[in-house]
Amino acid sequence: MKDLDFMARAIELAARGRLKVQPNPMVGCVIVKNNKIIGEGWHKEYGKEHAEINAINNCKKNFGAKKALKLIAGSTVYVNLEPCSIEKNTPPCSNALIKYQIKKLFCGTLDPNPKINGRGITQLKKAGIKISVGLLKNECKELNRIFFTNQKKFRPYIILKSAQSLDGKIALNNGESNWISNPESRKDSHHIRSKVKGILIGRNTAELDNPSLTVRLTKNELGLGKGETIQQPVKIILGNLERSKKVSKIFAGNSKVIVGSAKLSKKSKNIEYLKYEQKNFLKEFLQDLLDRNISSILVEGGQKTLNAFLVNNLFDELVLYTAPMFLGKESQDAISVKAPDKIKTSVKLKMMRVERFKDDVKTTYYNKDI
Amino acid sequence: MKDLDFMARAIELAARGRLKVQPNPMVGCVIVKNNKIIGEGWHKEYGKEHAEINAINNCKKNFGAKKALKLIAGSTVYVNLEPCSIEKNTPPCSNALIKYQIKKLFCGTLDPNPKINGRGITQLKKAGIKISVGLLKNECKELNRIFFTNQKKFRPYIILKSAQSLDGKIALNNGESNWISNPESRKDSHHIRSKVKGILIGRNTAELDNPSLTVRLTKNELGLGKGETIQQPVKIILGNLERSKKVSKIFAGNSKVIVGSAKLSKKSKNIEYLKYEQKNFLKEFLQDLLDRNISSILVEGGQKTLNAFLVNNLFDELVLYTAPMFLGKESQDAISVKAPDKIKTSVKLKMMRVERFKDDVKTTYYNKDI
Repeated sequence: MKDLDFMARAIELAARGRLKVQPNPMVGCVIVKNNKIIGEGWHKEYGKEHAEINAINNCKKNFGAKKALKLIAGSTVYVNLEPCSIEKNTPPCSNALIKYQIKKLFCGTLDPNPKINGRGITQLKKAGIKISVGLLKNECKELNRIFFTNQKKFRPYIILKSAQSLDGKIALNNGESNWISNPESRKDSHHIRSKVKGILIGRNTAELDNPSLTVRLTKNELGLGKGETIQQPVKIILGNLERSKKVSKIFAGNSKVIVGSAKLSKKSKNIEYLKYEQKNFLKEFLQDLLDRNISSILVEGGQKTLNAFLVNNLFDELVLYTAPMFLGKESQDAISVKAPDKIKTSVKLKMMRVERFKDDVKTTYYNKDI
Repeated sequence: MKDLDFMARAIELAARGRLKVQPNPMVGCVIVKNNKIIGEGWHKEYGKEHAEINAINNCKKNFGAKKALKLIAGSTVYVNLEPCSIEKNTPPCSNALIKYQIKKLFCGTLDPNPKINGRGITQLKKAGIKISVGLLKNECKELNRIFFTNQKKFRPYIILKSAQSLDGKIALNNGESNWISNPESRKDSHHIRSKVKGILIGRNTAELDNPSLTVRLTKNELGLGKGETIQQPVKIILGNLERSKKVSKIFAGNSKVIVGSAKLSKKSKNIEYLKYEQKNFLKEFLQDLLDRNISSILVEGGQKTLNAFLVNNLFDELVLYTAPMFLGKESQDAISVKAPDKIKTSVKLKMMRVERFKDDVKTTYYNKDI
């Protein structure tokens, strides 16, 4: 096995925390002695032990505490993200690595958090540990796209989702927009919901569609074990939405609802109203969401809401489900931004994935601006 | 080997004629005795021998003329399309099968040509040959989609092609439309050009873009051998286009040009003008193209031309190259049909293929109406 293989294993382990660690990053750690893995671990859940500590504990479990101490001393450690050097919910991991006298550390990327960025590394270097930064850097960044966005842009990671016809329409002129995409596409969109901390829609869509905004998949479909529960995302409304019969489903159940608007309404159980003075409060609202640990959101529409995010360049990912139909020139555009002067100067995205759901096509694009 | 396998082989052989047999169908033929293939052949080029004759000749080559006679007598023959029963460029194949005393014939589909449809089969039955029609029927129909369309709709097989942005735009408001799709997509579109008999564009596009409308691929890229030449499609213009400096490239070289319009212009070498009295002459024009052996056309735009085909339901295939950019609400729609009353009643297509060319996505749809 080579250094690359051990780092790839660390990334693989890290990804196991995908559904539970937000707003923390996913981190995996592999401890190697004489070219053999003697311990490995990953950050399993927000607030619980970090990957490095779990890997050390795994080594103790494998060899007994006494032998583990001897083995870890002089070992090489592979971790996809810089070990933390500050205490938050748990003691800093850099301390542990020094205490256990590891010899060398491979770390995929520095922590983008300005409070840490390089500080953990400096501390370890001072303690005489050899450091290599950047192995599988791109893969490590891709893994923690959400975390990197949070840290660098001070807002949640934003996925815009739209279902459109071949002629780029999201709804008929009378507002009808149901059943553009097929059941397979809609099921897939619930998988996206399951991976975010919040689902955002505009007030109009809330009143028009009365959606539930819940993840409607079985534990089996989500790959969850017996003891695990489905984490429902927070429901987020842009615009002044009052509780009423028309929007009964959003306020049903115990899920948290956050409403951001220029008005202040009466707070009630599970519902938080955020009031903003200025007209364009989107950026401030997003920062407030991140402050509430909502590190990723899925924006599901409608047209006005999606375009507000697009024209302000407030998005990291665009997911389009394209249905094989024409909705015609009188219908509503799914995406409606201002035209560029030249094709060369138009906003361009990066194509990431194409998937097919029967006759629908799902395309996933990244904003190049990350 | 089973009957299915022999028919699959016949289809495989038939497909080898793809670039050269139009307006004829692709046909492959396999002759089997005691569960072994004793001869096989395919229709190689328009005007040349049919598949059945080539298979018989192949058997003669394999075993010598005398032994071949004995072997073919009592054999089973697999052919994807009903053997012809009329003389056109070559004698009817049904006569040969009777003369060589085959025992059984598997034929994938009947010939859709009203002059043949079932007549070949009736003739063979009368001669005592056992007949089975319909083995791998769908595959056989798919193979000869062009031929079936020609025979049933009395017009060329029509492929509409468009390059559009994520918001469904084909050009800026000033008409700029170059470089929406990337070089890989444009190269792929030349492969489509190489498979059709004609490329059609509207007069506006001809004058605006001054395109060459040629297949610009090497013989190697087209899979052509040393002795073979690239067949350039006929250039077809919808609307009154006069020869001028502005459209120099279309009239360059020796390729045939056909112009269909309400006016009659002076005929010159390689240029044919077709004049129509009525305003909407598209259907009549298409029939005239088929009469000139143009069995398939690629419609490349612009917007008005594509929409004329769409709204008249005159298309069999839609190819969309979608580029990862926004061209904005002020730009020109790629597809602009009338909106349906309800989403349920909208025109729906059948998704056939998704391909990726770097950041572009190519989607191929069939008209369900076939």
